[in-house]
Amino acid sequence: MFGQSLYSEKINEVIAKARFPESPENLYDPIRYILSLSGKRIRPLLVLLGADLFTDSTVEGTYQASLAIEYFHNFSLLHDDIMDKAPLRRGKATVHEKWNDNVAILSGDALLVQAYQELTKCPADKLSALLPVFNKTALEVCEGQQMDMDFEKESLVSEADYIEMIRLKTSVLLGGALQLGAILADASLEHQSLLYAFGVNLGIAFQLQDDILDVYGDPLTFGKQVGGDILCNKKTLLHIALHKALNDEDRQVFEALLKTDVDVEPNKVEKMKDLYAKYDILALAIQHKEKFTAVAYEKLASIQVGDTKKSPLHDLADTLMHRKQ
Amino acid sequence: MFGQSLYSEKINEVIAKARFPESPENLYDPIRYILSLSGKRIRPLLVLLGADLFTDSTVEGTYQASLAIEYFHNFSLLHDDIMDKAPLRRGKATVHEKWNDNVAILSGDALLVQAYQELTKCPADKLSALLPVFNKTALEVCEGQQMDMDFEKESLVSEADYIEMIRLKTSVLLGGALQLGAILADASLEHQSLLYAFGVNLGIAFQLQDDILDVYGDPLTFGKQVGGDILCNKKTLLHIALHKALNDEDRQVFEALLKTDVDVEPNKVEKMKDLYAKYDILALAIQHKEKFTAVAYEKLASIQVGDTKKSPLHDLADTLMHRKQ
Repeated sequence: MFGQSLYSEKINEVIAKARFPESPENLYDPIRYILSLSGKRIRPLLVLLGADLFTDSTVEGTYQASLAIEYFHNFSLLHDDIMDKAPLRRGKATVHEKWNDNVAILSGDALLVQAYQELTKCPADKLSALLPVFNKTALEVCEGQQMDMDFEKESLVSEADYIEMIRLKTSVLLGGALQLGAILADASLEHQSLLYAFGVNLGIAFQLQDDILDVYGDPLTFGKQVGGDILCNKKTLLHIALHKALNDEDRQVFEALLKTDVDVEPNKVEKMKDLYAKYDILALAIQHKEKFTAVAYEKLASIQVGDTKKSPLHDLADTLMHRKQ
Repeated sequence: MFGQSLYSEKINEVIAKARFPESPENLYDPIRYILSLSGKRIRPLLVLLGADLFTDSTVEGTYQASLAIEYFHNFSLLHDDIMDKAPLRRGKATVHEKWNDNVAILSGDALLVQAYQELTKCPADKLSALLPVFNKTALEVCEGQQMDMDFEKESLVSEADYIEMIRLKTSVLLGGALQLGAILADASLEHQSLLYAFGVNLGIAFQLQDDILDVYGDPLTFGKQVGGDILCNKKTLLHIALHKALNDEDRQVFEALLKTDVDVEPNKVEKMKDLYAKYDILALAIQHKEKFTAVAYEKLASIQVGDTKKSPLHDLADTLMHRKQ
């Protein structure tokens, strides 16, 4: 983990050093603000680790590509928070709350363009390989967000559609970040593709774990309110799996719970968890998560480089999946 | 104009042939919709004419770059219409009206990414020259839109700030479109820069003319409601110039008019025009417009290619500036 924490420090330095124009301040202040809210910076780290996997030398363009990925991620947060009417992001007021929707739309647009500006600083001979990956990833993230919004209005979502939604909305960006690093380090197309698949499967597993922790996590260590997804009837994998498994009688209890606010039914979370327990939903969710985790590790294992080179990515995956503290 | 109308047909064909994924339909239907509203397609035409100026051969990538520019323009319309709460665009319901704000935000984002996807299809050895121009232009358009929104809340805007706002919001895209064409046709940096300046100055002149026509245009041929800017107190060049010129007594009349709705004062437009007449604002606005038009033609004249090669751009400028019907 030593290399990773060194990289994480460097990434934070690079982000802190990034300079944006002073004016118009309503365009650039929100960008400075969202970038200053300290996230985990996992995605830019993946660019650097993706490059390191294939070479021992310093690779030109990795910090530019990692900034591009981090800017893109923050652009998507700016716009998603408007769409989700989220008041808080990383414990602070969201941009559309602190300023207004228009400012959040436009500063998001500017940040997306700046992501491309950073990517364009990569070596010229790499642009025609980097850009299609970045473009495809960016478009898929938009598709995933649209599916997520569409699902809110649908009564029935299949497990497969849900997995596809989280693949697009959150996981392809992890795969894309790794692939940008691999491209910069001159990895073969086959290696790029394996590394991309590692990232995507790890991302899906991580999101499924987040769904599980939202119900079964330790309130002391889980960053969000445990039970939050149940309280807002979020169609997570657990919700969808339960919906599919229920008998008629329990379905009525389930439907009634969905219509009930926590003010009326203070035990909404507990009652939903009773249903989860009755149908063994936790085991099923863990099974799904383990399946994607296993595929991720298999893909990493298939890459023809020494195990020592793989250990930072292994460690990161273990940390993300709480296999190691 | 024969070449231009051939090109315009071809551009419409290329846009009509562009295929977007079927799903998620709430992401791609709005994109198909906005692109189907027939605009003048001036910007993609500029890419093609910019390339033609420097070569007689077919230049690879011009249709891709012209699609990129048209997609970018439509992305900016999607988001600007949300911010301006505009109900109509080219006589049809805007996307945020027909669907909703979230759909317009996200399909705009996707369209911006697709602009980059098109640009990325240009020859690989041109990407490192094309992208910085496209990125800079895109960011400046965002800056111009932010300045425009900021100006709505400011009581005093200078003529210079107003010109800078329209340069960024609308004119750099014309210059940028021309420069992309010039880059694809291997024009020198000096020629690129002259052609860019031609486009930017022409764009400013065109916007100033639009301000003038909004007050003095022929209701039969002007596309929008004549007097519309006065009715909504828009800070156009005429408004700003008048504000600066007024004596104390007239300033009171002016301020009172701004606070008066057309329901209360049906002659709001006429009364404002009386003030414009008293202070000779039309002549002043025409003088500004002519200044930028003259610079535009000078820049075009400085480009070292034969006059025949320049005639399509000359014709287009003449048409835009109503020097020729």
